[in-house]
Amino acid sequence: MSNPAPYTDGQRTLIAESSLRMLAADVLRSAGLSQPDADSVANVLVLADLFGISTHGVSRVPQYLNRVRLGGIRIDGQTSIEHLAPSLIRVDADNSMGPLAAQRALDAAMNCARQTGVAVAFVRRANHFGSIMPYLYLASEQGFASIIGSNATATVAPWGARSAKLGNSPLGIGVPNPGGDPVMLDIAMSTVARAKIREAAAQGSDIPDTWATDREGNPTTDPSVALDGFLQLIGGHKGYGLAVMIDMLAGVLSGASYLTRVGAWDKSPELSQDLGHFFILIDTAALIGPAELKRRVSDFAAILRSAEPLDDNTPIALPGEREMASYHRQLAEGISLMTRDVAALQELAGVRTES
Amino acid sequence: MSNPAPYTDGQRTLIAESSLRMLAADVLRSAGLSQPDADSVANVLVLADLFGISTHGVSRVPQYLNRVRLGGIRIDGQTSIEHLAPSLIRVDADNSMGPLAAQRALDAAMNCARQTGVAVAFVRRANHFGSIMPYLYLASEQGFASIIGSNATATVAPWGARSAKLGNSPLGIGVPNPGGDPVMLDIAMSTVARAKIREAAAQGSDIPDTWATDREGNPTTDPSVALDGFLQLIGGHKGYGLAVMIDMLAGVLSGASYLTRVGAWDKSPELSQDLGHFFILIDTAALIGPAELKRRVSDFAAILRSAEPLDDNTPIALPGEREMASYHRQLAEGISLMTRDVAALQELAGVRTES
Repeated sequence: MSNPAPYTDGQRTLIAESSLRMLAADVLRSAGLSQPDADSVANVLVLADLFGISTHGVSRVPQYLNRVRLGGIRIDGQTSIEHLAPSLIRVDADNSMGPLAAQRALDAAMNCARQTGVAVAFVRRANHFGSIMPYLYLASEQGFASIIGSNATATVAPWGARSAKLGNSPLGIGVPNPGGDPVMLDIAMSTVARAKIREAAAQGSDIPDTWATDREGNPTTDPSVALDGFLQLIGGHKGYGLAVMIDMLAGVLSGASYLTRVGAWDKSPELSQDLGHFFILIDTAALIGPAELKRRVSDFAAILRSAEPLDDNTPIALPGEREMASYHRQLAEGISLMTRDVAALQELAGVRTES
Repeated sequence: MSNPAPYTDGQRTLIAESSLRMLAADVLRSAGLSQPDADSVANVLVLADLFGISTHGVSRVPQYLNRVRLGGIRIDGQTSIEHLAPSLIRVDADNSMGPLAAQRALDAAMNCARQTGVAVAFVRRANHFGSIMPYLYLASEQGFASIIGSNATATVAPWGARSAKLGNSPLGIGVPNPGGDPVMLDIAMSTVARAKIREAAAQGSDIPDTWATDREGNPTTDPSVALDGFLQLIGGHKGYGLAVMIDMLAGVLSGASYLTRVGAWDKSPELSQDLGHFFILIDTAALIGPAELKRRVSDFAAILRSAEPLDDNTPIALPGEREMASYHRQLAEGISLMTRDVAALQELAGVRTES
């Protein structure tokens, strides 16, 4: 994951975590966020970069700021938090920057769950909040198990259909491991990301017929046909069902938009998206306590790792293990990013400084 | 779904819902459950039959009672409920009958969520609780959205491995639709159920290479080789990740057993399973209210159904729609069951009556 780069030109830059955090926060602050808010957004994005999820890291900053410039995101949006019941929170993100509202919803849910053991925050009028894994990680570090989801722009076809009516919604589940690395899953419902099909197209290679269909809904092995068609969801009707239920929770219950009513940040960057999210937090300290949890997670991991591997050189991994290995390595050695992504940030920082 | 029967000998019986409910409850009561407890278990199992999920309906009663007889399930188990925090419940099922403890956990969580908006019940020392869909349905009827999961006996291999270390854990998500049918998803993490592979073997037909692997972990199209191997999980590492996280929540956090430590009801029916479950309940009345929820679910369904179908004779369906159609039809016309399953219950009822 430290070199994901489907379209790398070979030009990568190694940048210290603290420098990247400061650079991203500088750019965000000069665009109009307060220093604490800029730090909060930078924190989420740099965590994604540390995990090796650079498609959802600081490379998103120029896109976010472009939408601010076009009026699609409100840099001065005022997130409001309603406590509807002792454990139930509704957040109106006021079309503010995605990771900022998401971080506030997460914080509100954690504060609430510390009192009542469990809390759910539903978020509406939200924007793209980056990758889910940073939120799982931040929750885990505070001792919370979490289930987090968001809806997304409609790009996939319902099971048995050939029209884009449904988002490729992400779902994350995290469980803390006191003193060790949390166990964290962050997946979208498609078999693979569209980027992997673009990569195959660029290399001129076929793709498995389980990745995508053509425009008519027929499975295809031709990546260029696939790019004009639809991503296939994991397990057919099962992935379809999961994507529907995530949107029911994130969109229908939250009061946000859903399905084709969700705005598309890429096609209509000047419009608000009205995305919805949900954050379910469970305080493991109230449930089991850190020593017992640590013992059980270690035992769980040992049992999984005792499985006979298909390939002796590829040991059995737990969800999030690869990302946490990337985290530790890049925290120590620096974060590897596309040079052009770092340059874009530096340019934004420079332009702002000169103005 | 009204004729699922992979191994039907063609002999099916139509039985009225009220008669089946009474028959199952009679058998359970004569085995030692109190009348209310027998009614509670019968309710869950008959709901599964109404949904057309007859593999998890009253056909399970003889198996449950066999385990009672062998000492694997305690007919007099005393479920205890601890309120660890205002919204956090831990249930010790005391190795009682699965659906009985699960229904109690669900009730406790709903009562709690009525007060605080959200509640989670974790269950340990539990047994097979049947299908998840009845619990989703019962929650929906009371206005609760729900996320429900259980771990399961280890039968599948971790991603990249060839040893059975992980359960094919089920996950359910339900959202109420006031005045209409709830939207409900109930899936295990394998591409298909093992029964579908047995069916192909019986018919002498090949299976897709995405269903199962041989003992060495290689995908196979031969159903007899597949039956000796491992089920494949949806989306490869994604289904693996989901199965792991469900077991982390249901097993590790609940205080139950997990992975290979879970007992196998089939191989060791005389031993307790120590399964774990979780029930996450969200009171939609506190969040959005029935009128607005109904309006939004209807709009959501209309958008999905507006997708162009691959096959004009197969309209786009929402999760649980097929099961709710079966529910309404069988409630009106009678429940179609294997004659031998009804006969087995009648025999149990008769034997008990005579003794």
